[in-house]
Amino acid sequence: MTIYNFSAGPAVLPKSVLEKAQAEFLDYNGSGMSVLEMSHRSKDFDDIIKGAEATLRELMAIPDNYKVIFMQGGASLQFSMIPLNFAKGKKAYYLVGGSWGKKAYTEAVKLAKTIPFEPILLGSTEDIVYAELPTFDKADIDTDAAYVHLTTNNTIEGTALYTVPDTNGVPVIADMSSNILAARYNVEDFAMIYAGAQKNIGPAGVTVVIVREDFLNDEPALSSMLDYRIQVDNESLYNTPPAYSIYISKLVFEWVKEIGGVDEMEKINREKAGLLYDFIDQSDFYTSPVRIAEQRSVANIPFVSPSADLDAKFAKEAEAAGFKNIKGHRSVGGMRASLYNAFPRQGVLDLIDFMKTFEAENK
Amino acid sequence: MTIYNFSAGPAVLPKSVLEKAQAEFLDYNGSGMSVLEMSHRSKDFDDIIKGAEATLRELMAIPDNYKVIFMQGGASLQFSMIPLNFAKGKKAYYLVGGSWGKKAYTEAVKLAKTIPFEPILLGSTEDIVYAELPTFDKADIDTDAAYVHLTTNNTIEGTALYTVPDTNGVPVIADMSSNILAARYNVEDFAMIYAGAQKNIGPAGVTVVIVREDFLNDEPALSSMLDYRIQVDNESLYNTPPAYSIYISKLVFEWVKEIGGVDEMEKINREKAGLLYDFIDQSDFYTSPVRIAEQRSVANIPFVSPSADLDAKFAKEAEAAGFKNIKGHRSVGGMRASLYNAFPRQGVLDLIDFMKTFEAENK
Repeated sequence: MTIYNFSAGPAVLPKSVLEKAQAEFLDYNGSGMSVLEMSHRSKDFDDIIKGAEATLRELMAIPDNYKVIFMQGGASLQFSMIPLNFAKGKKAYYLVGGSWGKKAYTEAVKLAKTIPFEPILLGSTEDIVYAELPTFDKADIDTDAAYVHLTTNNTIEGTALYTVPDTNGVPVIADMSSNILAARYNVEDFAMIYAGAQKNIGPAGVTVVIVREDFLNDEPALSSMLDYRIQVDNESLYNTPPAYSIYISKLVFEWVKEIGGVDEMEKINREKAGLLYDFIDQSDFYTSPVRIAEQRSVANIPFVSPSADLDAKFAKEAEAAGFKNIKGHRSVGGMRASLYNAFPRQGVLDLIDFMKTFEAENK
Repeated sequence: MTIYNFSAGPAVLPKSVLEKAQAEFLDYNGSGMSVLEMSHRSKDFDDIIKGAEATLRELMAIPDNYKVIFMQGGASLQFSMIPLNFAKGKKAYYLVGGSWGKKAYTEAVKLAKTIPFEPILLGSTEDIVYAELPTFDKADIDTDAAYVHLTTNNTIEGTALYTVPDTNGVPVIADMSSNILAARYNVEDFAMIYAGAQKNIGPAGVTVVIVREDFLNDEPALSSMLDYRIQVDNESLYNTPPAYSIYISKLVFEWVKEIGGVDEMEKINREKAGLLYDFIDQSDFYTSPVRIAEQRSVANIPFVSPSADLDAKFAKEAEAAGFKNIKGHRSVGGMRASLYNAFPRQGVLDLIDFMKTFEAENK
């Protein structure tokens, strides 16, 4: 039985990357060591981390005035670090189009009880279970505000923001965890981009941060580990980095480059996701909870059958047939097919066949 | 040429662990997935993280009223989290016997500028470059203080604290990063123990925290990610954990158990380190900077030759002969042999042979 991993993260990795990592698992580059054992101050690891950064810069066309760092703690730790470093006592706006964006806002509110600044909900579609993206009037944004935080892809709800909104000149910070390298964004539209690796980059345990140098705060934060300035000045080596996760990320970046880069990846993703969207659209059994076609995510595709009971039956039978982790997030139910970069096209075709059969049997 | 990895961390891992991980790299337990790709909410990963905890509990005889969590950010993030969660506006004492203990104290002082509490240097031997451990008069400890923080093994300076000092009833928090599982400690002597994995546990990217449940603070911290109560309540899954590092840690815990547990490991380590200490002691060419024999670390063994020039020559020639990462930390110079649990006895014998030859050639 072929296994397809539809997990929303940690998620499927390119087979060729895993095979390469397996082949050099015990002895990296003739060093006589596994990357797992390697000093982060060694020449070999220096080549790995610098190589990872160089390829990522190339893939995303990151300008020289942006710094790239590899951190720990996932996007969730960024939710606290961002206001801690960048709010500077000012207003900080949050555009909330999904559960993760709400978490980012909630953490800002929590932090504001201790560190003075003003987190503001710029827009939210929580009342409609995030079935579409929130809108706002740019005139409502104080031009002196610290930043506007947004999420480019809502992993749980399956919407994506492909065009960066006009924020009245206020710097934009984006959580790109679930569609970084899957769709083209112009880095210069953002003051900072961050992404947990475990979707389109690599294994869990590393978070990529891309930040414009003049946006960094020179005032020390309350913890060195939570201070972007210190992390940048130490080139991700203020303390021991998550070395193996960075190594796999480097291999994934090289794989994306081999495929043809981000534009080619996006083309492939749109075609791949399109197969499933087209099937759902023509079906009167399956439906997508996303209201606006232009806001559909190419990475995470939630869908439901006519009832919660049938959803449960679908998830169970799909699991048994090798379609793993297709159950929707516990907060929304239904199903979700996460079709990240490394997810094979054939898996989508096979899923559609399975969905057809299930529909015929349960209609 | 045989390669021996003397790195202070990330460090050598047991060969059998690496071979097992390599064998199941592409398909863990018939799941059709690599552990690198596995959802942290999956049954397979649940077995991994629970298995890791169970074996660690057995190895360290961790009582039921202690919680075990796996976190990110290394010991360095703990340096901020500890006062943030446990200082509670009170006095917090720091016993500083090495560079890492000083970092912990420095981070507490930094945090105290924002969060009110009183970090106090209980003792420090910085003036003698940490050549021995600091002492203190327990009568100087305010019994109402929040905690006493100490480091059980000083990775850079090569000293270790094998007996927990009397702290006048104030809870003890220990950074055990470089000798956890290498020497026996009684968990009940501590309110909290923490350790970055990359020495005796596994790869970089995961930090083990063992904390007595009644010591946890129920007042929310300023960040959910930095709140031990939240991490404990979510059993290390508040957000995506560093799954692969936890998996390798589990294999290492099983390996320590196979060897015979921590007591056996300590016996092996003492014999292994003893070979090198005995050789240094009888030599009038090499010397140890550690002044008191009882304070010698079994994990990190620094030594120097008669001059800095010869040290540089030694490090260079040793590196070329396959004795990797034996150069001392940049802050102290000289050499350092880190003989963690997984470091083979033969490597010590071969190093001694190399040292003899170098001595004969350069005396």
